[in-house]
Amino acid sequence: MSKEFKYNTKVYYEDTDAAGIVYYANYLKFLERARSEAIYSMGLTNKKLLNDNGTIIIVKSCKIEYKKPAKFEDSLEIISKIKTIGKSSFTMDQMIKRKEEVISESEIVLVTVNAEGKPIRIPDVLNKFLN
Amino acid sequence: MSKEFKYNTKVYYEDTDAAGIVYYANYLKFLERARSEAIYSMGLTNKKLLNDNGTIIIVKSCKIEYKKPAKFEDSLEIISKIKTIGKSSFTMDQMIKRKEEVISESEIVLVTVNAEGKPIRIPDVLNKFLN
Amino acid sequence: MSKEFKYNTKVYYEDTDAAGIVYYANYLKFLERARSEAIYSMGLTNKKLLNDNGTIIIVKSCKIEYKKPAKFEDSLEIISKIKTIGKSSFTMDQMIKRKEEVISESEIVLVTVNAEGKPIRIPDVLNKFLN
Amino acid sequence: MSKEFKYNTKVYYEDTDAAGIVYYANYLKFLERARSEAIYSMGLTNKKLLNDNGTIIIVKSCKIEYKKPAKFEDSLEIISKIKTIGKSSFTMDQMIKRKEEVISESEIVLVTVNAEGKPIRIPDVLNKFLN
Repeated sequence: MSKEFKYNTKVYYEDTDAAGIVYYANYLKFLERARSEAIYSMGLTNKKLLNDNGTIIIVKSCKIEYKKPAKFEDSLEIISKIKTIGKSSFTMDQMIKRKEEVISESEIVLVTVNAEGKPIRIPDVLNKFLN
Repeated sequence: MSKEFKYNTKVYYEDTDAAGIVYYANYLKFLERARSEAIYSMGLTNKKLLNDNGTIIIVKSCKIEYKKPAKFEDSLEIISKIKTIGKSSFTMDQMIKRKEEVISESEIVLVTVNAEGKPIRIPDVLNKFLN
Repeated sequence: MSKEFKYNTKVYYEDTDAAGIVYYANYLKFLERARSEAIYSMGLTNKKLLNDNGTIIIVKSCKIEYKKPAKFEDSLEIISKIKTIGKSSFTMDQMIKRKEEVISESEIVLVTVNAEGKPIRIPDVLNKFLN
Repeated sequence: MSKEFKYNTKVYYEDTDAAGIVYYANYLKFLERARSEAIYSMGLTNKKLLNDNGTIIIVKSCKIEYKKPAKFEDSLEIISKIKTIGKSSFTMDQMIKRKEEVISESEIVLVTVNAEGKPIRIPDVLNKFLN
């Protein structure tokens, strides 16, 4: 992954709630789409990571601050950065923006596990992009 | 399953959209919860059906008419009935009501398949409840 | 709308379920995204339709046949066509494809209503694209 | 709210993903359902809070640690506690358990705002339950 990975998405009806804004859990969907697209940009997929490297990336923890509500039909940009890298985990900062406005800031800790859910060393094929 | 299976649920923020009503796809979640609860009421689970009988129940088709919108914090009742039963499929009528008002009517065709997705005879453990 | 409107989307984790395939309600999200994008392609938005024309487009009914399951990380194409147009409603055919394979076929009846939910004539700004 | 509010829910197909476990964003839905049920247990609803007190409760931030994955058809208990109370905000601890196992721990900061999104003093009708 380059220093910074950018992904754009839009707010559809499915993302909003009766308060007319994006439902608080759905921002996490946008963040996950951005992380998946970052993986695709490396020429990888989650399927390949599992089949070729026996690796699944799971979310260990998530901190999110909601700064401004995103609204129906907004165009959003998700900016993802690697913050720290360990042996079997890494931390990402992910920001959601609507043009220049910050919608949310978040820190996500991800762990690489095997099919049984045990933490395993980040595979080289992924690690080389994280540094 | 008895002639008629009733299941109650509520409308939470997650179910609504910016129009202030339940998002049209989310009614299908309520219908599926009702079908799962019908299965639990038989002393079965989807896991048992798969592990003990090698059977997964999948949706083949769905027709739904939206009569009145369900709203945030509504209490809903889903009434499910078996309509017809075949060898490897069965059809259900499912109605969503808010007290006496009909919110939606639907007809769902379900097929019993094996782990590879091939249609298989409805297992006895399930079939005895459908008739 | 041109005779046929095409929209592409991908299957993310959020769309799948424990059976490893797209959850049956989530196909309806893809269909709605495609309809929203069709509206954007006309230079309209749902917000403009409401604010300038007092019009909301709601789903009256939905028939969907699931032909083949879409899977995690699939790239999908949604092909949308106008089938019939009435005074305050129109019917669309929407097909989901994965390359040449048909994933689902559906027929959606949409109604134009005012903010109180009463059917109203399709506004000209929309109608000119539907014919 | 009593010192501790307990709410039970189940894991349906809609909540799971291709990894066979609950999708990480969907735990936030369970947490919100529990908070809504806590409000109902006080004889309040979100609608009443808005109509009678001009108050909407929004999520300002969320920290969640995923300890163990919840699985399809699990029965879960959400235990919610008030941690701190300010003038226009309060913090809750919410834990998700499967019998004795801790599935997730979370801290949610909630703010009371008016219809325009400006923070306002927690209304008495709500405040008396939080202390």
